[in-house]
Amino acid sequence: MTVLDLNCDVAEGFGTWRLADDDALLTVVTGANIACGFHAGDPSAMRRACLTAVRHGVAIGAHVGYRDLAGFGRRFLDVDPAELTDDVLYQLGALSALASAVGGRIGYVKPHGALYAAIGSHEGQARAVVSAVLQFDPSLPVLGMPGSRWLALAASAGLPTVPEAFADRAYTPDGRLLPRRLPGAVLTDPAVVASRVVRLATAGEVEATDGTVLPVAARSVCVHGDTPGAVGLARAARAALVGAGVSLRSFV
Amino acid sequence: MTVLDLNCDVAEGFGTWRLADDDALLTVVTGANIACGFHAGDPSAMRRACLTAVRHGVAIGAHVGYRDLAGFGRRFLDVDPAELTDDVLYQLGALSALASAVGGRIGYVKPHGALYAAIGSHEGQARAVVSAVLQFDPSLPVLGMPGSRWLALAASAGLPTVPEAFADRAYTPDGRLLPRRLPGAVLTDPAVVASRVVRLATAGEVEATDGTVLPVAARSVCVHGDTPGAVGLARAARAALVGAGVSLRSFV
Amino acid sequence: MTVLDLNCDVAEGFGTWRLADDDALLTVVTGANIACGFHAGDPSAMRRACLTAVRHGVAIGAHVGYRDLAGFGRRFLDVDPAELTDDVLYQLGALSALASAVGGRIGYVKPHGALYAAIGSHEGQARAVVSAVLQFDPSLPVLGMPGSRWLALAASAGLPTVPEAFADRAYTPDGRLLPRRLPGAVLTDPAVVASRVVRLATAGEVEATDGTVLPVAARSVCVHGDTPGAVGLARAARAALVGAGVSLRSFV
Amino acid sequence: MTVLDLNCDVAEGFGTWRLADDDALLTVVTGANIACGFHAGDPSAMRRACLTAVRHGVAIGAHVGYRDLAGFGRRFLDVDPAELTDDVLYQLGALSALASAVGGRIGYVKPHGALYAAIGSHEGQARAVVSAVLQFDPSLPVLGMPGSRWLALAASAGLPTVPEAFADRAYTPDGRLLPRRLPGAVLTDPAVVASRVVRLATAGEVEATDGTVLPVAARSVCVHGDTPGAVGLARAARAALVGAGVSLRSFV
Repeated sequence: MTVLDLNCDVAEGFGTWRLADDDALLTVVTGANIACGFHAGDPSAMRRACLTAVRHGVAIGAHVGYRDLAGFGRRFLDVDPAELTDDVLYQLGALSALASAVGGRIGYVKPHGALYAAIGSHEGQARAVVSAVLQFDPSLPVLGMPGSRWLALAASAGLPTVPEAFADRAYTPDGRLLPRRLPGAVLTDPAVVASRVVRLATAGEVEATDGTVLPVAARSVCVHGDTPGAVGLARAARAALVGAGVSLRSFV
Repeated sequence: MTVLDLNCDVAEGFGTWRLADDDALLTVVTGANIACGFHAGDPSAMRRACLTAVRHGVAIGAHVGYRDLAGFGRRFLDVDPAELTDDVLYQLGALSALASAVGGRIGYVKPHGALYAAIGSHEGQARAVVSAVLQFDPSLPVLGMPGSRWLALAASAGLPTVPEAFADRAYTPDGRLLPRRLPGAVLTDPAVVASRVVRLATAGEVEATDGTVLPVAARSVCVHGDTPGAVGLARAARAALVGAGVSLRSFV
Repeated sequence: MTVLDLNCDVAEGFGTWRLADDDALLTVVTGANIACGFHAGDPSAMRRACLTAVRHGVAIGAHVGYRDLAGFGRRFLDVDPAELTDDVLYQLGALSALASAVGGRIGYVKPHGALYAAIGSHEGQARAVVSAVLQFDPSLPVLGMPGSRWLALAASAGLPTVPEAFADRAYTPDGRLLPRRLPGAVLTDPAVVASRVVRLATAGEVEATDGTVLPVAARSVCVHGDTPGAVGLARAARAALVGAGVSLRSFV
Repeated sequence: MTVLDLNCDVAEGFGTWRLADDDALLTVVTGANIACGFHAGDPSAMRRACLTAVRHGVAIGAHVGYRDLAGFGRRFLDVDPAELTDDVLYQLGALSALASAVGGRIGYVKPHGALYAAIGSHEGQARAVVSAVLQFDPSLPVLGMPGSRWLALAASAGLPTVPEAFADRAYTPDGRLLPRRLPGAVLTDPAVVASRVVRLATAGEVEATDGTVLPVAARSVCVHGDTPGAVGLARAARAALVGAGVSLRSFV
């Protein structure tokens, strides 16, 4: 029987601003990527997300990003690798304290946005993030794109790696995510998302924008929480997976 | 024989900006109040300060402050207590991760600037900081002004409390620090600072601006690192204390 | 015939975050308080708000605030008055450039949140904001609470002053706004808001929380855009005013 | 007789942090690149720099940068061009208000750090900055590297362009600046800087790292204020130029 983790981003507001319905999302997923304050996520939002995750038995993931509130961490920033390591360590420690305060702990690490994209191939930044996780806790699993430089380096360094797929993002024929700024990059039809996620889970494949069928060996699937109808989308994905006999469980 | 801790602020730069000669200061003091990123202190500066402190056997203190880089944490901010607790927890966790990465750990907590001043009497904010420390590590000593509401609440909550005095700050007749914006608030003559610190250590008293002699039972003395000639001042204080038979040792 | 300005806050998002339906609000009001980047309002959001305001013939107001994105400018910050003057000038200039770029110009100044509240009585900060407006453009009208220190100082300095009332905020018996953190501070029933705003416009009075009837001579009325159902509320206020024969027109 | 502008960066501190001795630098140069708050430069520092510039008859330049205080604007940030235009407009407006308040005005625009480097070749960002200047004031001269895409686009758009050279930076054989992180990138020997600047002014050439002699037709020369001994370096450059019969005068 196939076992899959369903992860989504939460705590992506800042101060008075909210982005998604975290409370609802955390009743659907098995892993919560919690923003750590650099691209989003004020300390109180982080605590609330940790608390809700703990209550629902959802694994807490550190969603570390570039220091860029104005850009929501979605713009490449050419940070020096040594500084990036420290930036990531800082975020891991901060989230860890808030998770501990509510009886939880960080279960995994997933870089966010442009950092996630960059370390697919940026050697220096990929090494920097690996180094931060190693220094923080070398037993911590990390999420990433199958085939990414980041996941390869993490594996070489002995970190448990979890390849993931995206239920609601279009793929280019060479297996990367279609950049967000392009039309059709984010899928919002629950039926489409549901059928894609089932195909991912049961056949290990996803269809690219040009119809190419890409093999994707994912242990986790990401759904986004900030798209219109996100909660409905996540529920549709979950229901379809359960209906297809997939067991939803965190890898933590 | 009198035992005294000598603490000073370090890692008070941000990015390209530096404030004090941390490397020199850390050869003089026994406790390093390390900024945690909210009023100053980028992650790499924090790591460097932790590393230097570890090398010199200096205790690592979490110098937590208001989120106010533009004001260097020296302006009162009317933060909601629940949010303040989370802000402090966030900073404690962040510093903890960087300290651990270099083989150190947080040895104590000292609030910074306007937060330090506010919790001398602001009930809600004082309770908020106590709550953060309790949630992070209830065995962690906290520094504060003798007689402050903050230290009283911390003691009631079971936290080890360390009363401190200021070697280079003028005192008002009622035992508070003369606000920084007033003339004469910060003392910069090494001979004056040296004689004050010896009197503090050996007689337990300090002279206020009007000549009043105030009893001050301090287990730690603070010297500032960002005043002109700060390192010389710290060295003068240390030499005078050693000459007076005082043993300089952290309480950690 | 009574003439009234109806003002509301817009551009109160930041980066990816949005707070209100600005496009809809700007079809209802006659004055747009545009956030200037310190408590909210990234440059692109400011431009969009200016552009929409220009298209609808809505006056552009500079909604200047404390530098506090995390607190949305709703927390008192003890800024030095000289620095506050420069902070406000900076915001005025920034908004002015974006307004000019779309063919508009700043028509008035309204301080935001905790700054608005503080300068009701805080002499130093009130003088600081007056000084900033004088230095920027001494012909610019300023909005404020009738009876506030801010409005009195502005009038003494020769600035045109516009007293305003709040359609959707509860008043204390002494004529101030009930603080937001207290229950009942923000009114959300369109019928209640509509009847209050008509009474304000036609009888020049508002009922306080204890039933006291307060005289309020307002030339402008504020409705908030970030409350649930805000656009409906604003429309209800507008319709009721028009129905009562009030002419809605900016003072600019 | 050769006429040259000598420009340097000022107001590059933030809050409590200072970077250079602005007061001394502004007695030496003819153009002041004033940071506008995104990479450095709080409003009060900007005002002080404007005031000092006005007093010494130094032209005020808008030193616009990426929104990146932590990285001092020295890290490439992949900002969307439309947002970059608004970010630059915002900074221009802010500086303009502070300059006006002290009787000055913006005389030219010079992008800072990584933005300056990026728009040497990044088409989208170069166009974005040109667009911002055009929208702000199409008569405003802009500074840049001769041969840069930025200067070419600015010229095509009708903006007055001022090619500049760097007195204290090493050049690569292809005429670009050696990146700061490389050894030898920043020159600190006053004699070397003096002789280079004279050769630039009189022969219109500079020697690259490999000895190649590069033709550089510069109307302005930049000296940095944040290197050790910066004021001495600026004075040496000025004295050498005057000694060589060069007339130091702004192009504004």
